[in-house]
Amino acid sequence: MAAGTPLLKDELDIVIPTIRNLDFLEMWRPFFQPYHLIIVQDGDPSKTVKVPEGFDFELYNRNDINKILGPKASCISFKDSACRCFGYMVSKKKYIFTIDDDCFVAKDPSGKDINALEQHIKNLLSPSTPYFFNTLYDPYAEGADFVRGYPFSLREGVPTAVSHGLWLNIPDYDAPTQLVKPSERNTRYVNAVLTIPKGTLFPMCGMNLAFNRELIGPAMYFGLMGDGQPIGRYDDMWAGWCTKVICDHLGLGIKTGLPYIWHSKASNPFVNLKKEYKGIFWQEEIIPFFQSATLPKDCTTVQKCYIELSKQVKEKLANVDPYFTKLADAMVTWIEAWDELNPAKDSAKLPNGSA
Amino acid sequence: MAAGTPLLKDELDIVIPTIRNLDFLEMWRPFFQPYHLIIVQDGDPSKTVKVPEGFDFELYNRNDINKILGPKASCISFKDSACRCFGYMVSKKKYIFTIDDDCFVAKDPSGKDINALEQHIKNLLSPSTPYFFNTLYDPYAEGADFVRGYPFSLREGVPTAVSHGLWLNIPDYDAPTQLVKPSERNTRYVNAVLTIPKGTLFPMCGMNLAFNRELIGPAMYFGLMGDGQPIGRYDDMWAGWCTKVICDHLGLGIKTGLPYIWHSKASNPFVNLKKEYKGIFWQEEIIPFFQSATLPKDCTTVQKCYIELSKQVKEKLANVDPYFTKLADAMVTWIEAWDELNPAKDSAKLPNGSA
Repeated sequence: MAAGTPLLKDELDIVIPTIRNLDFLEMWRPFFQPYHLIIVQDGDPSKTVKVPEGFDFELYNRNDINKILGPKASCISFKDSACRCFGYMVSKKKYIFTIDDDCFVAKDPSGKDINALEQHIKNLLSPSTPYFFNTLYDPYAEGADFVRGYPFSLREGVPTAVSHGLWLNIPDYDAPTQLVKPSERNTRYVNAVLTIPKGTLFPMCGMNLAFNRELIGPAMYFGLMGDGQPIGRYDDMWAGWCTKVICDHLGLGIKTGLPYIWHSKASNPFVNLKKEYKGIFWQEEIIPFFQSATLPKDCTTVQKCYIELSKQVKEKLANVDPYFTKLADAMVTWIEAWDELNPAKDSAKLPNGSA
Repeated sequence: MAAGTPLLKDELDIVIPTIRNLDFLEMWRPFFQPYHLIIVQDGDPSKTVKVPEGFDFELYNRNDINKILGPKASCISFKDSACRCFGYMVSKKKYIFTIDDDCFVAKDPSGKDINALEQHIKNLLSPSTPYFFNTLYDPYAEGADFVRGYPFSLREGVPTAVSHGLWLNIPDYDAPTQLVKPSERNTRYVNAVLTIPKGTLFPMCGMNLAFNRELIGPAMYFGLMGDGQPIGRYDDMWAGWCTKVICDHLGLGIKTGLPYIWHSKASNPFVNLKKEYKGIFWQEEIIPFFQSATLPKDCTTVQKCYIELSKQVKEKLANVDPYFTKLADAMVTWIEAWDELNPAKDSAKLPNGSA
């Protein structure tokens, strides 16, 4: 398949929350230059983000977000990379790839540069298999297939909504683990892509993530983090929990594994601890909530599912902290804003549209 | 951990269904010679199985099985490698490793011989994580851990009952896939071990499999296959479905991935098709049955779970084929025979016993 993987140049946007590092785009130039970039500046709008020559991009700062969304801009986080989800909303493309600016091109075990985007596209264009585990991993990969005992009726799989890529070098650890193991590096290249089974939650990291926004976009809300909020570093986790529950309900798949990027820089564990500590105990209640969440049959679009989830959040998590009432309201605002910028046709369309 | 992995020489038996190939034991000699072997001869008891010098083994043929189990021998398959489960029953050890005689020592990507048994022991001695997916795979592996967003309350994991190893070279395909892709070889070495999430079934292959028989032994029944039965090549699948449902119920874990063995010889796809064809359509009903099977709370031992499953099989699968009534009865006989040979203490003991 490698040779024939389509580039999807006109169908994919790359969304980046602020670029503090010019090397970042230079390093990715061979892979990213054909694509349109959406940069969402997370901090002070008076600062200028420098983008090297030759890239096709649009840049949004807080003033732009306020202008475009009006009062609904309240649902977009400020001074936090969670603001990136505004980019998902303004994109008009079918696919999104989002990456952090401290993530560089990794090398595979043969020493070759990994084209992360190409692997994400492969993952998104081939089906997922959430209903039964295939022990040889992705059955659609070259040289692989379904093993003995895999039901034939399940071999067509389901459409893939999300491709979750991994990180060599600095692993995505929480602050306590960072503090305990400051020098641990991920050197293990695991040559596999696999579907997260139905009914199983996973910690979705936003560092190296691609998705089909026509299939799942409205669920990719990164919540309220950063300025004025009691929590940070749970933006992608929140999106991951909601997305997984909705994908399970709608019969969509989520893959994890390849591609790797090279994560260059660990964020400060002390700062992280301050951002995370509420999340660390809240997640002990949030995760069981999502594990047992069910959506009614008439939730047939991502938007309907998301609104329903917001109600359940308000009802069942408000007793954890008043923050969740605010978050539940922001979830509704997010969907209203999404629908305003993306009228009608985008919702829950099956991936039959051609390139 | 590698350096410190205990060998468990006095706690592990290797169970092999017939050895047709003398090279097999010679190749494994450096790894297997310290262990006790249980060889269960699957065919004509008048034929002699030759075991090379220096191995400590016991050999059972059909006459022995009949003598030991009396009328209960009816639950052990004849002329099929499913007979291997008799070896699980007569063993007095805590751990079992079972391997087929066409499986040889594989090499890792650096060219080093893989000590499959050592990796299985590692897998069995470290916990499993069935309740939440860890994107960096086995969090207990060297250089790995739980990623950001993994609930701290789940990081102790649960006891591991089963370690399912994989195969390089000839993949474990069903007959239709073998026929369609006669020359496909598995060359992908995936350097990972992962827990199969709770609620997800998988196709368990008996070629390269280890388990803790104190924790799960009585569920490792390989069913009625071969001589006089309408089906073959579903012995390990049957054991896998039952085992997974029971592990999920009892809070035990199943891992898959490393270690690899080198599977040297594809079995004949035409012969396989004849054995498998009923299974190929039956599994379309059997798998949903196991996916929705639940066990009552008072099923607190593997034996109780298994007897309960046998009732549900009789009730819900008898309409698929009369074979399942016979199989359900054999499941009960199996447990009676197990308890006869393994009185009392073995059932559902937690893995706190020291070496």
